[in-house]
Amino acid sequence: MKIKELFSGQATQIEGEVTVRGWIRNHRKQKNMGFIELYDGSCFKSLQLVYTAEQDADGKLKGLRNGACIEVTGIVQPGFQKELIELNVKDVLLLGDCTEDYPLQPKRHSIEFLRENAYLRPRTRLFQAVFRVRSVAAQAIHTYFTERGFLYVNTPLITANDAEGAGNTFTVTTLDIADVKSGDKKTFEEICKDDFFGRHASLAVTGQLEAEVFAMAFGDVYTFGPTFRAEHSNTKTHAAEFWMIEPEMAFCDLEQLMDVEEDFLKTILVYIIEKCDDELTFLENFTKLPLRERMKKVIHSQIARVSHKEAIRILRESGEQFEFEPKYGEDTAKEHEKYLTEKHFKAPVFIYDWPKDIKAFYMYQNDDEQTVGAVDLLVPGAGELMGGSQRETRYDRLLARMNELGISADSMWWYLNLCRYGACEHAGFGMGFERLLIYVTGMENIRDVIPFHRTQGNCEY
Amino acid sequence: MKIKELFSGQATQIEGEVTVRGWIRNHRKQKNMGFIELYDGSCFKSLQLVYTAEQDADGKLKGLRNGACIEVTGIVQPGFQKELIELNVKDVLLLGDCTEDYPLQPKRHSIEFLRENAYLRPRTRLFQAVFRVRSVAAQAIHTYFTERGFLYVNTPLITANDAEGAGNTFTVTTLDIADVKSGDKKTFEEICKDDFFGRHASLAVTGQLEAEVFAMAFGDVYTFGPTFRAEHSNTKTHAAEFWMIEPEMAFCDLEQLMDVEEDFLKTILVYIIEKCDDELTFLENFTKLPLRERMKKVIHSQIARVSHKEAIRILRESGEQFEFEPKYGEDTAKEHEKYLTEKHFKAPVFIYDWPKDIKAFYMYQNDDEQTVGAVDLLVPGAGELMGGSQRETRYDRLLARMNELGISADSMWWYLNLCRYGACEHAGFGMGFERLLIYVTGMENIRDVIPFHRTQGNCEY
Repeated sequence: MKIKELFSGQATQIEGEVTVRGWIRNHRKQKNMGFIELYDGSCFKSLQLVYTAEQDADGKLKGLRNGACIEVTGIVQPGFQKELIELNVKDVLLLGDCTEDYPLQPKRHSIEFLRENAYLRPRTRLFQAVFRVRSVAAQAIHTYFTERGFLYVNTPLITANDAEGAGNTFTVTTLDIADVKSGDKKTFEEICKDDFFGRHASLAVTGQLEAEVFAMAFGDVYTFGPTFRAEHSNTKTHAAEFWMIEPEMAFCDLEQLMDVEEDFLKTILVYIIEKCDDELTFLENFTKLPLRERMKKVIHSQIARVSHKEAIRILRESGEQFEFEPKYGEDTAKEHEKYLTEKHFKAPVFIYDWPKDIKAFYMYQNDDEQTVGAVDLLVPGAGELMGGSQRETRYDRLLARMNELGISADSMWWYLNLCRYGACEHAGFGMGFERLLIYVTGMENIRDVIPFHRTQGNCEY
Repeated sequence: MKIKELFSGQATQIEGEVTVRGWIRNHRKQKNMGFIELYDGSCFKSLQLVYTAEQDADGKLKGLRNGACIEVTGIVQPGFQKELIELNVKDVLLLGDCTEDYPLQPKRHSIEFLRENAYLRPRTRLFQAVFRVRSVAAQAIHTYFTERGFLYVNTPLITANDAEGAGNTFTVTTLDIADVKSGDKKTFEEICKDDFFGRHASLAVTGQLEAEVFAMAFGDVYTFGPTFRAEHSNTKTHAAEFWMIEPEMAFCDLEQLMDVEEDFLKTILVYIIEKCDDELTFLENFTKLPLRERMKKVIHSQIARVSHKEAIRILRESGEQFEFEPKYGEDTAKEHEKYLTEKHFKAPVFIYDWPKDIKAFYMYQNDDEQTVGAVDLLVPGAGELMGGSQRETRYDRLLARMNELGISADSMWWYLNLCRYGACEHAGFGMGFERLLIYVTGMENIRDVIPFHRTQGNCEY
């Protein structure tokens, strides 16, 4: 029986005999009694096993080590804490022993130590909470889109185009790196001709353009998969490999896009709060952050919507001393975003109609010729959580913008053709999955919400 | 309104006025009337738009081209076919025109032509069916595991280890290929030290070993994500990038693994049949294959279970003329698998306890010292659909096997350590998502069940 089943049906089980299997997280031995904290990963709660010295005449129980895997049969009895139950041990079977040098001991390990032991940290209570929330959040996202008829589309990870332009990408190759003869004075293109795909290929930084292809056939679609950036910056929020959600909707303008983003965010937060009670309780304690309270604030807020121009005006008139002066036509800094969400609006805020020069080529060019139909969602405690835009579908304007930015129209022929073959108003957004998880779990570092993180110099496991 | 909503609530809509938006798949013009087939991707069915010459006095309707995107308002009326409805057009708005050179015309295009135009093929009925089935099958899989408490885990795509040993992998690098100075006589390791991860990194061929890490913490887990093989073979079933499902379960032996595989397969087939009625009807017509009939046979069959030895005996005693002689201790050929599933058992069959020399290092070594606890599931019409095994958890045996096969224990220190820290009996299987889709949709080529296929020389879009 799983420990989850035991807890969920506990009323009927008192005095009943059950057999459970799991791992020992902690074993406290007193003179006449022993207490074993057993977990099996099926739920956040551990089951307390209790035995007396008399029950353990042969010392089999007493000898059990932390980390060991056991099968235990016992009688369910009310626990010390009212809402819990515990198991009075009748018999135990050692399924897999654990050596004395087991790195996880019943003390508080530093988060850096656990990161280095990424293959063991899923066993700790902290990471049982984090990775369960991650799994539930993924369910929430798939469920949201499935219930609304969105098509799930798997866009390619290996790609010959680079949608974001100057992104730092990883090259994918089957060439023997040590054996490429640069002495032959071959050009880059010539070398790539011998490569697996016959051209230079890299890991995708987004699936958006391919998602647009599908939106022009299925209406509402979404991607949910890995993306890659060769980020050399060693920050708490950047990783070389992370997961993205990118919905794309036909017959959707910027205003409707904000409606979807708002509904999406609120719905998945409700889902996570409902399903992760024990995990969030633990994480609130661990992080000292009011995780649910701030999520509920978002759920019950009306998300403010201001143009970039208006946002800059608010910042300039705020009387705040900013390190960077807020300027029309320029990007906002973290301190600006913080002021807007935490001080001015005290709520999440959509900032839309961004200066075109700081945004991507595929965004809808507004009539003012200064701005594009882009929108960023800022959330208190999370910063920029989603970025989206209405897409440019006017062939001439799109091509002109690509030329201005030096993006090759040749390699993007198919994307340009979308404009010619029954294009309609459409829009979409991207959300970094780990960014959501950092917000929901209160963990500070992206490395701690990914099972095995990939950053510069780190590729273990 | 989406066309799906219109069809699902059709009884109440007759005589009602509705507005729908979508794309023109076909426009038939008769002398006094016109018929437009409109689709919006929300469901497989198209909506027929009808207009008379009188209604179209200004010729606005008549001029509409295939591929164009329109918004149309009209009155719902019973269709020519009893079960359908159609729309009598009152007004139309051209949202996005389509040029005359639109590659998709209302005739049957070859599947090769559509493959080359992969950015347009999602608009055809065939690929509307295929990619909807793909999306529904993904839902089915996530739903199956979610309902059973499995943790969804995202294993890393960029990896420094190669679980399958000799797999052809893609290198992931930020080195400038054209600028690596082999003249410096640097060793491969030295060159890789300058690379992004400080070592040689490649794209993962499996997430199994990392999934095992999580199974030893959460009990039941599964992965569902992309995997990569630098396959130089140009076949109908191989792609360089494809999606895999890899569940891993603690406290699970080979027999229980087969139970899970059987239940999993039947459950997702039921789900797909339920949700994809229109799509499967079309695909049955297109492929001339009894898709649902053969799926239902699987659903209602008891899957046979025979050892590899027994399977070879059956083959050798069959009296069949095989091109390759079935041999104890060797792999089976496609013709053997076909005979077993289609002639002998007339049902799917599990073949278990395979000769150890043809299987991977991590599989449980049976007492006979000849075989390992591996199991392949063969399905009529699909071939090998799943491959799984109980895992070796005895440290000495695992290490010995790695040494025999020349697999570096140094780089696998963490995997080996799993044996030392509370290991328990566990097992898992892998299923190629596209292999399932080939079976369910009846499509012959893996290139036609992936949105944008990646094979040698092909990296367009």
